[in-house]
Amino acid sequence: MDSVKDYIRTIPDFPHEGIMFRDVTTLFASPRGFRMAVDQLVAPFAGQRIDKVVGLEARGFILGGAVAHQLSTGFVPVRKAGKLPGAVIGEDYTLEYGQARVEIHDDAIAAGERVLIVDDLLATGGTCAAGISLVERLGGEIAGCAFVVDLPELGGRALLERLGMPVVALCAFEGA
Amino acid sequence: MDSVKDYIRTIPDFPHEGIMFRDVTTLFASPRGFRMAVDQLVAPFAGQRIDKVVGLEARGFILGGAVAHQLSTGFVPVRKAGKLPGAVIGEDYTLEYGQARVEIHDDAIAAGERVLIVDDLLATGGTCAAGISLVERLGGEIAGCAFVVDLPELGGRALLERLGMPVVALCAFEGA
Repeated sequence: MDSVKDYIRTIPDFPHEGIMFRDVTTLFASPRGFRMAVDQLVAPFAGQRIDKVVGLEARGFILGGAVAHQLSTGFVPVRKAGKLPGAVIGEDYTLEYGQARVEIHDDAIAAGERVLIVDDLLATGGTCAAGISLVERLGGEIAGCAFVVDLPELGGRALLERLGMPVVALCAFEGA
Repeated sequence: MDSVKDYIRTIPDFPHEGIMFRDVTTLFASPRGFRMAVDQLVAPFAGQRIDKVVGLEARGFILGGAVAHQLSTGFVPVRKAGKLPGAVIGEDYTLEYGQARVEIHDDAIAAGERVLIVDDLLATGGTCAAGISLVERLGGEIAGCAFVVDLPELGGRALLERLGMPVVALCAFEGA
């Protein structure tokens, strides 16, 4: 039996030397791999009410669009600062070097809506934690955070679990 | 009966003064609107073989992920220069001010595969034409180009039709 992990390729030294980049585009390009990934991301939430899928820019948009379609929910993007045209709220977070900011439309989530956050890869969890904060500031409740790849050594899963979040990851790679 | 167009909002003066920005995030956020859009984007291609859906960064990723899922195909991203980790081919195109470059993984499309290109909005058609060129350089055949919004005054549809492309757009707005 093949698994989601079999479809992911590793590109050494991208985006800079010493990084083993886990490339999900080969997973997405496979009809079988892509469907398997979407099915496995939603399976843990079967029977739960999910009102919105939030995808994190940019690869989270690909998966999130498919997951929202599978669940028959709406899709809401969390984007880098300055990209969304309407009124937004924003959240700063720390990167390896410096700071970044993500934003969400301030009318994208209604109070009490249950939200599934989707991204391709969980590393430090900084972007996802910022996304969680944005959803919660709008009154949404996080049903869970779902990723294709977990890099456990970078601590993202531990961070999200400390925040009380249900975390789903379809596979893990050791070594950042 | 509601239509896809009813779910799209217009934001004046974004990203700069004088632009009426057609915002599809309100369409995507609606379970009914999002499903209607995906259904209508794929309907004209019913009965045709589609092997891959190509989405243009970044809003084309959201729609393209859902369309690929609906059609049970793989998804391939066309991204801005420098974002894809593997070996790529690139194509330059002209923007209102200056040039931009998009890239595709050089192994993402096999010769003879039939490709549906998806994006949220058709303006000048420059990005889409670059995407078409990338797919064709890899030996792919374009089944069509599908958009939610057409801005006919900007000439994108005319450009793509001159290239012999079947173009689908779910609605049009006059006035760029």
